[in-house]
Amino acid sequence: MAREFEDHCWKDVIDADTIAIYQAYRRQTYVGDNPAVLAIDLYNKAYQGGNRPVREVDREFPGSCGEHAWKALPLTQKLFAAARRARVPVIYTTRHVDTGGVQSTNRAMGRQRDDIYDIKAELAPQPGELVIYKERASGFFGTPLIAHLQQQRINSLIICGESTSGCVRASAVDAYSHGYHVVLVEECCFDRSALSHKVNLFDLHHKYADVMHIDEVIAQLSATSPAVKKAS
Amino acid sequence: MAREFEDHCWKDVIDADTIAIYQAYRRQTYVGDNPAVLAIDLYNKAYQGGNRPVREVDREFPGSCGEHAWKALPLTQKLFAAARRARVPVIYTTRHVDTGGVQSTNRAMGRQRDDIYDIKAELAPQPGELVIYKERASGFFGTPLIAHLQQQRINSLIICGESTSGCVRASAVDAYSHGYHVVLVEECCFDRSALSHKVNLFDLHHKYADVMHIDEVIAQLSATSPAVKKAS
Amino acid sequence: MAREFEDHCWKDVIDADTIAIYQAYRRQTYVGDNPAVLAIDLYNKAYQGGNRPVREVDREFPGSCGEHAWKALPLTQKLFAAARRARVPVIYTTRHVDTGGVQSTNRAMGRQRDDIYDIKAELAPQPGELVIYKERASGFFGTPLIAHLQQQRINSLIICGESTSGCVRASAVDAYSHGYHVVLVEECCFDRSALSHKVNLFDLHHKYADVMHIDEVIAQLSATSPAVKKAS
Amino acid sequence: MAREFEDHCWKDVIDADTIAIYQAYRRQTYVGDNPAVLAIDLYNKAYQGGNRPVREVDREFPGSCGEHAWKALPLTQKLFAAARRARVPVIYTTRHVDTGGVQSTNRAMGRQRDDIYDIKAELAPQPGELVIYKERASGFFGTPLIAHLQQQRINSLIICGESTSGCVRASAVDAYSHGYHVVLVEECCFDRSALSHKVNLFDLHHKYADVMHIDEVIAQLSATSPAVKKAS
Repeated sequence: MAREFEDHCWKDVIDADTIAIYQAYRRQTYVGDNPAVLAIDLYNKAYQGGNRPVREVDREFPGSCGEHAWKALPLTQKLFAAARRARVPVIYTTRHVDTGGVQSTNRAMGRQRDDIYDIKAELAPQPGELVIYKERASGFFGTPLIAHLQQQRINSLIICGESTSGCVRASAVDAYSHGYHVVLVEECCFDRSALSHKVNLFDLHHKYADVMHIDEVIAQLSATSPAVKKAS
Repeated sequence: MAREFEDHCWKDVIDADTIAIYQAYRRQTYVGDNPAVLAIDLYNKAYQGGNRPVREVDREFPGSCGEHAWKALPLTQKLFAAARRARVPVIYTTRHVDTGGVQSTNRAMGRQRDDIYDIKAELAPQPGELVIYKERASGFFGTPLIAHLQQQRINSLIICGESTSGCVRASAVDAYSHGYHVVLVEECCFDRSALSHKVNLFDLHHKYADVMHIDEVIAQLSATSPAVKKAS
Repeated sequence: MAREFEDHCWKDVIDADTIAIYQAYRRQTYVGDNPAVLAIDLYNKAYQGGNRPVREVDREFPGSCGEHAWKALPLTQKLFAAARRARVPVIYTTRHVDTGGVQSTNRAMGRQRDDIYDIKAELAPQPGELVIYKERASGFFGTPLIAHLQQQRINSLIICGESTSGCVRASAVDAYSHGYHVVLVEECCFDRSALSHKVNLFDLHHKYADVMHIDEVIAQLSATSPAVKKAS
Repeated sequence: MAREFEDHCWKDVIDADTIAIYQAYRRQTYVGDNPAVLAIDLYNKAYQGGNRPVREVDREFPGSCGEHAWKALPLTQKLFAAARRARVPVIYTTRHVDTGGVQSTNRAMGRQRDDIYDIKAELAPQPGELVIYKERASGFFGTPLIAHLQQQRINSLIICGESTSGCVRASAVDAYSHGYHVVLVEECCFDRSALSHKVNLFDLHHKYADVMHIDEVIAQLSATSPAVKKAS
């Protein structure tokens, strides 16, 4: 099941010299102990305009990830189902509509619908699942996420969502800094730019996280008996 | 003096569609008020093996940025000189040799010379300049940097150093999250991978920071009378 | 106007030896530059049961500060009015009713009315004023407060609210740690325990903050022309 | 073994009304799972001038805790021995001699001996034990402590050291905020002021931590088989 360390979406953009330079990072990837899924910014805004190229939806719906969001949607549903079967918590991030001037990035924003920061219905939190409201890119910055992780004895994170080059990356770097083992699910992360998606996953895989394919992650989640997992 | 918003090193790797999607981020770039230079990880390790391609120096000196480090060196000296003339503080980050297991990235490391984390002599801190010791990628994580910035009434940062895709990026994202205006000096940031360098600067420029050319930054620093600067 | 350094409410509980030991902390107290008022947890819950001894209101309204809250109320209105006249921002903290298990202290809590964490009407935020929602004692922990302070170029804080020995103390210590000059307005801080109130103000005054009387604070705010204030 | 919830050193200073008000906090105290000992600022400075009243040693050695430090010394040695027998990590905090202007409190300090921030020899770290260097009161602020705790799968802390009303309190509040179960060992915490010591332990016991007697803590540590404890 385990694939080659560099068998990922960045293969067509990273050259051989760079792969050679980064050889020292090769290692076995794995889902860590006592994991939680951290689902970054899977709100309606990312899907607006439908399953079409970003360039097309962007005119009317700035911030939409278009076809990249829609392609990841059924796979993310699968990921959540596998996590819940294994009693692995699913934790969401989103933002409040109006946060008084502190924005997660520099982008100019016009008026917005009221529900654009609601989690997409197909991926909606189940009763009791935690939703973290943030104002910055990282799910850790300016939020009590770290306290909830500690109280739930979470020791590792499985991160998915958008955008790979924005809030996913910032959250993954912060998770690593705080001492968590981090997995990024390649097919469940998405971005508006294909190149940024690939290069950011490459950076993260070598420096801070294990980028894994969804089939590998689901297989490891399924192999995890909840009873054993919670023996800590 | 001000150049076109996308007139940067990433021009040859970012396609027209992506540039179009990111139009909403266009704005005037500038050095903010009450700045400090934040010089990330300009330690000996980055220069080991000399002014040669990374692929060549990497065999003997893992972690060296080779020719990219050496190309940025005289320009970084210029930047520091301009900052000191304008009485803009220069703040350095580096790391202790042994940090008991908390590493800034996942890379396997062998035994190391004792002075590899000393700041390169040509760029050495002057008496009284602050050096922040960190264990993670970001200069903010696990350090008292934020307290020093507040006590010195620093309101914006001019970031340079290495690596663009590692500690520079993590520090820039954290600076933005904390509410600072951030400038990245394109010619004074460097990386082991040219593509990661370019794509990370592209990401940062659009989401979190103003990537500026060194001539623009030095011109704005020179125009800043220290007396006027502190009136903001 | 300036009173003696130890001329405060703790005079009747701190003995002469301790005052002698703490002499090294004596200094001029002052409202810092570019201040904001940070109003801690001035929500309805603190006033429930009315202007009566805590011991009496506590049976029905656990968490109420009773007479101590009511005594501080008109003075806090005066403080806010003086701040707004001087164009000093007033920033509030409170909490959401349900925070999924992360509590600010260990106290067991029963069912609660829906508006208990609304700011008391007499002290309500004016349009545009910032309200920070927190889950822990400190207004800095797990909130984006630091980013808002930096973006508004706030360099010092004037703290009031409750409880002195809980959220006020935790917020003041964190403000000091982050590099802010901190003033505590003695008459506008309150607690359920008189001794804890006094000893915590004593601790804070000597280690982290300037405890000042409301007349001193209002005088310094009034002397501050908004135009001059921003020249600092 | 377990004593009454209020059977602690504050009995002679907290009045009956206050005890009544705080009844809602009564609960079973305990050493949490996967603990570490966090030993706050047990450096030479605290012991200078010897086993004499603080008032006497303070003239020559400002910052010394005098007899309070010396009384806690053999008990702290016992605590460390019990922890090491149970394979519970001991983590120390101290500070660098010169930290460029960021101080943990407001106290004016003169010139200092070079070894005043070395851990007292009788309590010295054993090889491999972690020492955290901090510039502020809390062991969490501006340090990578949180990352080390997470990497070692620490879930609770047993805090001792000095001063109760300064760095111990700040560290305990931050530990609670981050989601850790916190125990304070009454006999191994000390302060320069007896009243501040008592009232701060009272505050912490009711709001953030379990203040326990050293015999209770050692009994619980001894009952913990390392093999079972590390089954997580």
